[in-house]
Amino acid sequence: MIEVYASEVRKRTNIPVFARDVERVLSALFVTSDFWEVVRYSMVSLPAVASIIDLLKREDWVGYQGENIVLTEKGKREAERLGIYPYRRYTCDRCNGRTVTIDGFKDIYEDFLKIQEDRPEALHRYDQGYVTPETTMARVALADMRGDLRGKEIIVLGDDDLVGLALALTRLPKRVVVIDIDKRILDFENRIKNERGLEILDLKRVDLRDPLPDDLLGKFDVFFTDPAETLPGFKAFAYRGIATLKGAGCAGYIGLTHVETSLSKWRDIQRFIVEAGLVITDIINEFNEYVNWPYYRSTRGWELNPVKSDPKGIWYVSALYRVETVGEFQRWNEPLAEDIYEDEESSTT
Amino acid sequence: MIEVYASEVRKRTNIPVFARDVERVLSALFVTSDFWEVVRYSMVSLPAVASIIDLLKREDWVGYQGENIVLTEKGKREAERLGIYPYRRYTCDRCNGRTVTIDGFKDIYEDFLKIQEDRPEALHRYDQGYVTPETTMARVALADMRGDLRGKEIIVLGDDDLVGLALALTRLPKRVVVIDIDKRILDFENRIKNERGLEILDLKRVDLRDPLPDDLLGKFDVFFTDPAETLPGFKAFAYRGIATLKGAGCAGYIGLTHVETSLSKWRDIQRFIVEAGLVITDIINEFNEYVNWPYYRSTRGWELNPVKSDPKGIWYVSALYRVETVGEFQRWNEPLAEDIYEDEESSTT
Repeated sequence: MIEVYASEVRKRTNIPVFARDVERVLSALFVTSDFWEVVRYSMVSLPAVASIIDLLKREDWVGYQGENIVLTEKGKREAERLGIYPYRRYTCDRCNGRTVTIDGFKDIYEDFLKIQEDRPEALHRYDQGYVTPETTMARVALADMRGDLRGKEIIVLGDDDLVGLALALTRLPKRVVVIDIDKRILDFENRIKNERGLEILDLKRVDLRDPLPDDLLGKFDVFFTDPAETLPGFKAFAYRGIATLKGAGCAGYIGLTHVETSLSKWRDIQRFIVEAGLVITDIINEFNEYVNWPYYRSTRGWELNPVKSDPKGIWYVSALYRVETVGEFQRWNEPLAEDIYEDEESSTT
Repeated sequence: MIEVYASEVRKRTNIPVFARDVERVLSALFVTSDFWEVVRYSMVSLPAVASIIDLLKREDWVGYQGENIVLTEKGKREAERLGIYPYRRYTCDRCNGRTVTIDGFKDIYEDFLKIQEDRPEALHRYDQGYVTPETTMARVALADMRGDLRGKEIIVLGDDDLVGLALALTRLPKRVVVIDIDKRILDFENRIKNERGLEILDLKRVDLRDPLPDDLLGKFDVFFTDPAETLPGFKAFAYRGIATLKGAGCAGYIGLTHVETSLSKWRDIQRFIVEAGLVITDIINEFNEYVNWPYYRSTRGWELNPVKSDPKGIWYVSALYRVETVGEFQRWNEPLAEDIYEDEESSTT
């Protein structure tokens, strides 16, 4: 039965959706009636979730009550008959499932919290949406534990998350270069740099659709990036990140969601990483928690939300990938003419 | 300089060792003089760590003081000159870096703790070495959160960790099949099965060097395995685990160490997983913590330990991989004549 639904959703959305995804959405619907929470808990891409819910509505498995999406008696009965159970959550309440705590950076975190209060707001135009300050700090802690902070030359490709600023505030790296297309972010970080005398921090305006300049290629030990999640977006951000690395034993930190990327596309990305000559050392789901962006009512995600409810808390999360070069690897640095922000799975455009 | 050391260790051990690995060992030596802790913290394979330390000793960067391996003044000076810093650790003290807590399984955990007290001891002959009861329970919690427990048909390939027993104790899966070569483990679990009336638990004696019988192929939603980490060992355990899965949207839980597997071999394994038609959904380092096995003084690891110190606490850990099938995948089930327990990187044989 749900295999038939999955197949119909596959046809409608052109996204690889399996019966397991329908099961995940139903499991989530047992414990929440909030569209955004269903997206978070199910770990299914937003357009697929919307399409699955639409189909379940047609079949009278769910009903809409105001802004709530509710399993009907029929839906509950059918789900139970299929052996589908309510979603369970055991995420650690201390580290929020991140594996590391930020206690070792208490003072810097408090400083960072104040500094980021007047950060530039997320812009739709650049597909921005930044993580919580706690997330930014936890990235720094994990990087330090993995030996990717102290004495290292680090590049951040796109920094609405201000991770470059947080890295520089520790004063532990040898150099931190932030590249971004958004002058507001560069100006903001430049102001803090001057106020705090953060000489290790360098800011450069770069459009990642263009090839990186030579003076950034093969010059870094570590990169951080939160790519736009289309394939061209992943190339612009992550492929170019890899191209900045010096040689073997260098690392990259990449954010990747389930909201905008199906597991089949995760697999394509993993194949690229491995074939390019890198190994994946960590995949920590829900490491990155995003603050809701102000423009969400004009995104495709909002349009697809069948009940047009506002998000009540953090719902957009991503997994943190750490990758490392082992031996020779490919440095890809071609120009990109394509749309890096939108494909069938995207929802923030 | 350390690139030269890495190259010498590569030649000596036939393991892909990079300057970064020498750096990792030096970082660990700043904070511990215990051989086993250096292995854990550095995340470098044990034979490579031993060879690196041997070389650092020759160059007078480290000295041996009884059972301690100590950085010399020269070693410290050289490491600092190279921009190598002491290892830092921010692992969450609540979930032990596992992302999930086991609070939701409190009663079952307490029961399991008592039951496992008279479990069969780890045998050298089968390369056994079991995880802490907390680790076993945390695997159950993560599986439940990922929707891989309730109503599912689960197979465990090799169960000295007693994860099959713990899964059955929850009484939540539809069926749990444990296959093992070791009659002691099957007898032990069978006794508990009879005492507790765990009808969902099935026990079968299987030698994983042989192809799996037909009645296990394509029959399960989820598998768990902690493979022997040679390539033939990985085939015997993990490849066969994949062969037991029903179709798309099924999952596998696999333990993989840095102690016995270099990042280059991690990459080979990741390439296999992706090419076989699966995606890696989680890699949580140090998820699995192993109780020291009684036979460690007769292993290659002990032989390679230059100061012949006894482990003081948990040192052997592994990452937990969760993999998932997306669409078509390969079911490999060939006979294996090779040695599944030993290669150049192994240390528990």
